[in-house]
Amino acid sequence: MSPSAAPAGAPVVLLTDFGTRDWYVAAMKGVILARAPRAVLVDLTHEIPPQDVVAAAFTLAASTPWFPRGSVFVAVVDPGVGSRRALLAAKADGRYVLAPDNGLLSLVLAQATRATVVRISNRRYWLPAVSRTFQGRDILAPVAAFLAGGGSMARLGPKATGVQTLPLPVVHRRGTQQVGRVVHVDRFGALITNLRGGPGRPGWDVRYRGRRVPVVSTYSEGKPGQLIAVVGSLGLLELAVRNASAARLVGGRRGDVVHLERAPADRLRR
Amino acid sequence: MSPSAAPAGAPVVLLTDFGTRDWYVAAMKGVILARAPRAVLVDLTHEIPPQDVVAAAFTLAASTPWFPRGSVFVAVVDPGVGSRRALLAAKADGRYVLAPDNGLLSLVLAQATRATVVRISNRRYWLPAVSRTFQGRDILAPVAAFLAGGGSMARLGPKATGVQTLPLPVVHRRGTQQVGRVVHVDRFGALITNLRGGPGRPGWDVRYRGRRVPVVSTYSEGKPGQLIAVVGSLGLLELAVRNASAARLVGGRRGDVVHLERAPADRLRR
Amino acid sequence: MSPSAAPAGAPVVLLTDFGTRDWYVAAMKGVILARAPRAVLVDLTHEIPPQDVVAAAFTLAASTPWFPRGSVFVAVVDPGVGSRRALLAAKADGRYVLAPDNGLLSLVLAQATRATVVRISNRRYWLPAVSRTFQGRDILAPVAAFLAGGGSMARLGPKATGVQTLPLPVVHRRGTQQVGRVVHVDRFGALITNLRGGPGRPGWDVRYRGRRVPVVSTYSEGKPGQLIAVVGSLGLLELAVRNASAARLVGGRRGDVVHLERAPADRLRR
Repeated sequence: MSPSAAPAGAPVVLLTDFGTRDWYVAAMKGVILARAPRAVLVDLTHEIPPQDVVAAAFTLAASTPWFPRGSVFVAVVDPGVGSRRALLAAKADGRYVLAPDNGLLSLVLAQATRATVVRISNRRYWLPAVSRTFQGRDILAPVAAFLAGGGSMARLGPKATGVQTLPLPVVHRRGTQQVGRVVHVDRFGALITNLRGGPGRPGWDVRYRGRRVPVVSTYSEGKPGQLIAVVGSLGLLELAVRNASAARLVGGRRGDVVHLERAPADRLRR
Repeated sequence: MSPSAAPAGAPVVLLTDFGTRDWYVAAMKGVILARAPRAVLVDLTHEIPPQDVVAAAFTLAASTPWFPRGSVFVAVVDPGVGSRRALLAAKADGRYVLAPDNGLLSLVLAQATRATVVRISNRRYWLPAVSRTFQGRDILAPVAAFLAGGGSMARLGPKATGVQTLPLPVVHRRGTQQVGRVVHVDRFGALITNLRGGPGRPGWDVRYRGRRVPVVSTYSEGKPGQLIAVVGSLGLLELAVRNASAARLVGGRRGDVVHLERAPADRLRR
Repeated sequence: MSPSAAPAGAPVVLLTDFGTRDWYVAAMKGVILARAPRAVLVDLTHEIPPQDVVAAAFTLAASTPWFPRGSVFVAVVDPGVGSRRALLAAKADGRYVLAPDNGLLSLVLAQATRATVVRISNRRYWLPAVSRTFQGRDILAPVAAFLAGGGSMARLGPKATGVQTLPLPVVHRRGTQQVGRVVHVDRFGALITNLRGGPGRPGWDVRYRGRRVPVVSTYSEGKPGQLIAVVGSLGLLELAVRNASAARLVGGRRGDVVHLERAPADRLRR
């Protein structure tokens, strides 16, 4: 679509819990641009709640499929910085993801058709001096630049074994019912579940916190103040209130149980 | 100024009310970069108050003139997502602007010397699967990539008719007085009006909320705590307090009436 | 690392107190891209507390060394906009920095091995019309584009004399003790001092607000709720609490006195 002599650089996509008030993100970008001047820097978010690895894992997995193959994600939510936990580089369905070995990669790896993971141990691709407190800048940023410039992941270190995973909630079937969980609350207060929505789910209801919640096709079908369930943009059922926060309305939070079941017959007849 | 073999990609400028905590903006960027790898992504803002189409329209119109021709703006503040409202593509003085048909384009079109608008209906330039809840990612992002890559707007759909417009406040003349409105409150608490300022407006005063407010040339002429009127960077008169919030000081808000009138003769003599 | 026909554009790095809610930052970016379409725009931060020149100077100096030579920094924290203070362009160890003459350059110049500073006075590189209220857009942005495109700093104006400097706290020695200050509080609540940390500083303690604070190698050595001192990513000693805010725990703030001294002999023996 945009043919040209020189190829565009690879996207390098950053996710952290650093916020954007200090110089931490910029220092990482400087290191990347010094080594891969054509890299296309993208901020995924820097507002992951401090050290919330679960939120980071979800946000990362929601984003990677939309980026072109060859993109490099750098995820730094790292309560254990400076300790002995490893740093990992994964290749999942053609995208690279760099992260500490603390479960952050769980969802990206779970959703990938093909994935390989190495342990980042070859100091040749790090900054010459590595601090104990900012490995995002000193190790992950130069390694991202190496990959964005076409470097081979195999040179970063040996295949990783025993990669940490988060205890991800799974969907249980109970007769015709499905029992899932709220896995993320977004900034609009939508309660995103791990229940897969078919197209529209006609004739189904969600049961949540003692309420029966209709599954509708789009937010605009909700009445003011009404809790509805919609198949969101990730293909997952989410509980929402049109133009308001479902989380605040019902006091919902990550981990809540959600039931998906056939709507009563009388509802269907109408 | 920077000659080179390969042309730089077009700026693609994003304005939303999505915030930057979740993956929504990043997903749009991923879609754009997958189809227009040379696009230069710029965040206008993602902090439009949720569904505040008026603030979005103002912020958009304040920005477009500063970008080069060929830039592509994508504006997603869309209370009606998933309903039957159309999506539009405009070309206004050489810049493209994509937005839902909800008034968001009003000010950009009003200030343009030349403008054309089409309805985005040709599914060929959309993502293959379009969700009901995230048309910014599934329709506007790939269409933006198409335009950024040099595609022709005419191929997106037919000429739009009956484009929605916001009821924009106009300036009334009453004798030598001009009566305008506060049209935007910025994050510093400056109350931006729709009154055009000449250079300096010597000999004029603003009357606002029962106060007589001197028109001065620059913020630094204001005394601490003093409400002043300045011709701001958009060429519009704004009410401000040096190093403080005018909005908070006087309880000002969008829609407030503002009078511009000759200063009393004794003031002029001094 | 990424060889290609066309050279990548220079990074243009923006630091302001504008926030990201309005169009101010975007207008600057539009002006830059219109004149230097290959520039690589980076947001250092736009969340400097309004008009906090000291925080801006620190944040800027913490970032510049990580960016490649030829990068152009534009720093707009400018209580005196529109007044007679000059605008400056500095070249410090190969990076350009544009800023008002209000002390913002103090730390960048202090840490540079080689630096030259000119006064930006040649209107040829400004926008044709310069507002009184937004010189960042009308003067600094086009000048940044000029430098990013390879322009010579000498053409911007004459050598600057009497450049404003901030009263920067220095470290005093008192016997074997060093007496420094908290110079920055980051968004995690870490209290960053101007005391240089050697690698690990074994056998040293910090004394701060009546507490004796152990110097450790990494955050993860801290016990929950324990105030520790770590050599941070800038090579400076910082006071921190693992996974919590040291500033909130002890009520610490910029300017606080901090003592670095030998740990008591009995501690060393253990």
